[in-house]
Amino acid sequence: MNYDTLFQNALDGLRADGSYRYFAELERHVGKFPKAFHHGVGRDVTVWCSNDYLGMGQHPDVLAAIHKSLDESGAGAGGTRNISGTNHYHVMLEKELASLHGKESALLFNSGYLSNWVTLGTLAARLKGCVVLSDELNHASMIEGIRHSRAEKRIFKHNDLEDLEAKLKELPLDTPKIIAFESVYSMNGDIAPIEEICDLADRYNAMTYLDEVHAVGMYGPQGGGVAQERGLEHRLTVIEGTLGKAYGVVGGYIAASAALCDFVRSFGSGFIFSTSLPPMIAAGVLASVRHLRNSDAERKGQRAAVALLRKKLEAVKIPYMRGQSHITPVMVGDATLCRELTDSLLKRFGHYLQPINYPTVPRGTERLRLTPGPLHTEEELDSLVSALDTLWTELKLPRTAA
Amino acid sequence: MNYDTLFQNALDGLRADGSYRYFAELERHVGKFPKAFHHGVGRDVTVWCSNDYLGMGQHPDVLAAIHKSLDESGAGAGGTRNISGTNHYHVMLEKELASLHGKESALLFNSGYLSNWVTLGTLAARLKGCVVLSDELNHASMIEGIRHSRAEKRIFKHNDLEDLEAKLKELPLDTPKIIAFESVYSMNGDIAPIEEICDLADRYNAMTYLDEVHAVGMYGPQGGGVAQERGLEHRLTVIEGTLGKAYGVVGGYIAASAALCDFVRSFGSGFIFSTSLPPMIAAGVLASVRHLRNSDAERKGQRAAVALLRKKLEAVKIPYMRGQSHITPVMVGDATLCRELTDSLLKRFGHYLQPINYPTVPRGTERLRLTPGPLHTEEELDSLVSALDTLWTELKLPRTAA
Repeated sequence: MNYDTLFQNALDGLRADGSYRYFAELERHVGKFPKAFHHGVGRDVTVWCSNDYLGMGQHPDVLAAIHKSLDESGAGAGGTRNISGTNHYHVMLEKELASLHGKESALLFNSGYLSNWVTLGTLAARLKGCVVLSDELNHASMIEGIRHSRAEKRIFKHNDLEDLEAKLKELPLDTPKIIAFESVYSMNGDIAPIEEICDLADRYNAMTYLDEVHAVGMYGPQGGGVAQERGLEHRLTVIEGTLGKAYGVVGGYIAASAALCDFVRSFGSGFIFSTSLPPMIAAGVLASVRHLRNSDAERKGQRAAVALLRKKLEAVKIPYMRGQSHITPVMVGDATLCRELTDSLLKRFGHYLQPINYPTVPRGTERLRLTPGPLHTEEELDSLVSALDTLWTELKLPRTAA
Repeated sequence: MNYDTLFQNALDGLRADGSYRYFAELERHVGKFPKAFHHGVGRDVTVWCSNDYLGMGQHPDVLAAIHKSLDESGAGAGGTRNISGTNHYHVMLEKELASLHGKESALLFNSGYLSNWVTLGTLAARLKGCVVLSDELNHASMIEGIRHSRAEKRIFKHNDLEDLEAKLKELPLDTPKIIAFESVYSMNGDIAPIEEICDLADRYNAMTYLDEVHAVGMYGPQGGGVAQERGLEHRLTVIEGTLGKAYGVVGGYIAASAALCDFVRSFGSGFIFSTSLPPMIAAGVLASVRHLRNSDAERKGQRAAVALLRKKLEAVKIPYMRGQSHITPVMVGDATLCRELTDSLLKRFGHYLQPINYPTVPRGTERLRLTPGPLHTEEELDSLVSALDTLWTELKLPRTAA
């Protein structure tokens, strides 16, 4: 059997349906975010799809903390958390994250993907008879964690309280249950009814697991996420976040009760058997989290940029999904057109963003996804919207009616 | 239902059977490896259980490359590989790793755990009817990857060619198969019969998946691992390695055919949906890999330290497992004694290592696991062996006969 032929056939399938991924090779420049040198086109471009939402990846406090820790402790942790790999900065960062969310404890992971996968995988597998109620738009890392646990899963309609309650009602009160959902849904930019979900959890004796990866750093007076903004942190069993988006570095975490964190720490294979994050990463994140607990400037700057972008899109009647979050999906509805748009934006106008196609979103809802932040200037916004306006005409894309 | 009580009960179980993990809070000092400040005992200790086997975590080239990339590109990648998160250093590092192993391509992951989990999980799930033949001592990340795939698994006895062949024989020739194994087994320090396993793979039409995490950097003329040392790299379908042990930083990778790497890149959920490693991590690793391709001094230093340690252990008749690798397991055979030993080594003598107890090894085979490297001095070796000698007498532990 020629295995490579099997792989190649599967890849040809992706190419045929337009979902094959081409990576852009980029180099961002500290001090010039959101610009980056794009090796494919050989010039600087403006990045509109980064998840370094607030530009913290170039913040002087973050860089200084990393330089310092690197000089002190070296490049890596040297082991798993249990076998010589727990550094002072890991411990301090976990305390900071627990405090940020008003929880007893926090637990660090090498990525947000791992934090979801390990935590849901461990809780759902080890609580006997556990049933997971999962929002239909949950992220792949949650889906895979639930899948890995082999626990029973019931998918409820996106942000649909009636459907969730109907599914909770079917289960005995003494069955362990986890309601797994996100605050900000990344592809639509809408936000979950967190309080009402917590009410249902109380009524039906369920734990709540809230993924705030697209919210931490950006919502709430200290950047604790949407649950913090709404004063609901104490009502959630687990808050999960990332250190690779608004905090600008890499890694993931959960914040929860001491017992729950210790349980995942003690039984989660993907936690136990991973070399821990380099101390310098923990040091950099610590600086980033502390900065965003005390500074509102980045959040205000982001909100201003989002509002300005939307105003400018409306002025030229380009359709976008009106969510409550910082994410602005511009609807295209066709995979080929979506790629044509992003190709032209890049090559003719120097704006870089990725087409969002199937399987990330359903076919027919292909889109651009814009995440302007505090570092995008009005000039850059104007340049982008004017380019979109030109391409919308050239490609005969529909405009909004109003 | 009080969920915290359920968690607490499970943790109490671990405490009762001696397998509850207490993390040591450490700070290594650049320039003073393998010393670290131990926050628990409030003093500097010598670390004997780190997987930063060659001390590359403090190598000047590695630190310089990280400082430089941090100043240039900032702290994080800013996105997944597909959505603005591919930096020039990721691309260069993947080329370097492919070249190191004589393969067409390589693919980076956020950790070695993820590289095993994603690659085996993706290959075994997506090759229709695939059966995985797995060595019984394989690492948790491989086991979980196979489990996640839901493919059929057949476990063969550790390094047992006869048992492996018997299991291969039971399967039709046109069934897709993966033989998954490690080169250096971390807890025993023994090495797989790689060539003979490749012979069986050829005969029975199987792919070979070799985990070299405890070998890359340390074996072979360029640090390409045991397969490189034995001239067998071209015979393996996938070589998997880590960037968090001998290379001293963090991350994992596979090296394989272009089609296989592209297949995992395109279908592996844990790859696709993870924020990529910070560019500075890729830059630091690149410096580390390049250094160890050109320098043999670290490998020679490690071999000398291992030989010296064993000679000194033999002189005082302390029993250890005689494997071909750099890992020296000192057998204790009792969980409580094992913890008493490490507690005394730490508190009375300033030597830090973790007891290796169940479930990492079978009950009755509890052990210390020593990984001296090129930075351990003869004075430190003497101090450790003398402390072991004292404790062996105090605790009435058995000595070797000869």
